[in-house]
Amino acid sequence: MKAVVLVSGGLDSTTLLHHVVKRLGADPVYALGCRYGQKHARELDMARWQCAQLPAVREWRVVDLPVGELTQGASALTDTAIAVPDLAAIAPDQRRQPPTYVPNRNMILLAVAAAYAESRGCGAVFYGAQAADAYGYWDCTAEFVARLNAVLNLNRREPVAIQAPFLELRKAQILQLGFELGVDYAHTWSCYRGQDQACGRCPTCVERRAAFAELGRPDQLPYAG
Amino acid sequence: MKAVVLVSGGLDSTTLLHHVVKRLGADPVYALGCRYGQKHARELDMARWQCAQLPAVREWRVVDLPVGELTQGASALTDTAIAVPDLAAIAPDQRRQPPTYVPNRNMILLAVAAAYAESRGCGAVFYGAQAADAYGYWDCTAEFVARLNAVLNLNRREPVAIQAPFLELRKAQILQLGFELGVDYAHTWSCYRGQDQACGRCPTCVERRAAFAELGRPDQLPYAG
Repeated sequence: MKAVVLVSGGLDSTTLLHHVVKRLGADPVYALGCRYGQKHARELDMARWQCAQLPAVREWRVVDLPVGELTQGASALTDTAIAVPDLAAIAPDQRRQPPTYVPNRNMILLAVAAAYAESRGCGAVFYGAQAADAYGYWDCTAEFVARLNAVLNLNRREPVAIQAPFLELRKAQILQLGFELGVDYAHTWSCYRGQDQACGRCPTCVERRAAFAELGRPDQLPYAG
Repeated sequence: MKAVVLVSGGLDSTTLLHHVVKRLGADPVYALGCRYGQKHARELDMARWQCAQLPAVREWRVVDLPVGELTQGASALTDTAIAVPDLAAIAPDQRRQPPTYVPNRNMILLAVAAAYAESRGCGAVFYGAQAADAYGYWDCTAEFVARLNAVLNLNRREPVAIQAPFLELRKAQILQLGFELGVDYAHTWSCYRGQDQACGRCPTCVERRAAFAELGRPDQLPYAG
């Protein structure tokens, strides 16, 4: 199987990359990262490092997408004027579409990945959405993936299907899988704030630390404070 | 109504822009053009000119999208190593997905436009797909638009809907509408070859000339030869 994998350099998509190569046996793999204006673009350095460990990864491409500039004012992940909130500061009624949501980002990333896949003769794009994402982001749900596949399935020549094997896994389960696959999580990056050290308090830091804690494993990423 | 309009600078989307402003009364309008690696990026100069005629157009934005570079080798519209064919040279069995098809371009453009719309509080993205496109491009069909709307409709906060009012119109009907709306077609560009003069033989030139001929109106664009 030839496949495109969307790799951000975070915990979920890094585990996905290893899963697709080592468990599903995909070869060659085309890994795609996106600079969409995220403050934590340093995650992509981690993705590059992970790709370099896997000979099946034939290409590692990073593309620039104008999402942050075009949606200025809309997301704490891309707008320097909007601080990334601590998870504890996000009110319950905001959590179904929190300040860290980036307008339609995931459809854009997946549409670009599907174009890349089509041009490389890959029938599959792998996407690392996981169960906890679905509470906060409409574009991380099983229904979102199913409906996007209904669109892509109209392609008359080379239909591409999005596969999201972690949709029903919690982060701790993904982390457990990654340990079984020998993933080195010191070379991943989650923190939305994108400083030298991970903050430990933003939504993704809190999720990540909880997953390591649940498994009783140390997280080798340096945290501030 | 606030709306985003995807404007390439070609005949269809230029007419659409005028239609959305003058008939549908949209105000303000956010017009979006995309440099995706097309050889005929000069079409965007025409789009800018058209936007400048319409006070309702509050913003005219051009964004760069890495479609051509990422799908290299896949389309005559973006790859300098692949010549744009004359329409007459495209075999009948190629016409359902011809060499001028760009992998998943339209989903990418519409996904980006939807992000822009969401960030500006616009409920609608207008898309200039027309009836003859549907024969050659899966991503210009009514089914494509309907299924993409099924995806966007999952958005929990500000769902955006794609509207394609020309889906059942032939090019001559669109042109007729444009004349009624006072569109100056000397400031539009169709030719895929993107030279100083329009070639008159590529698929879009042939379609355009046929539409003018059907209405018995002169096309003021200079053609080669």
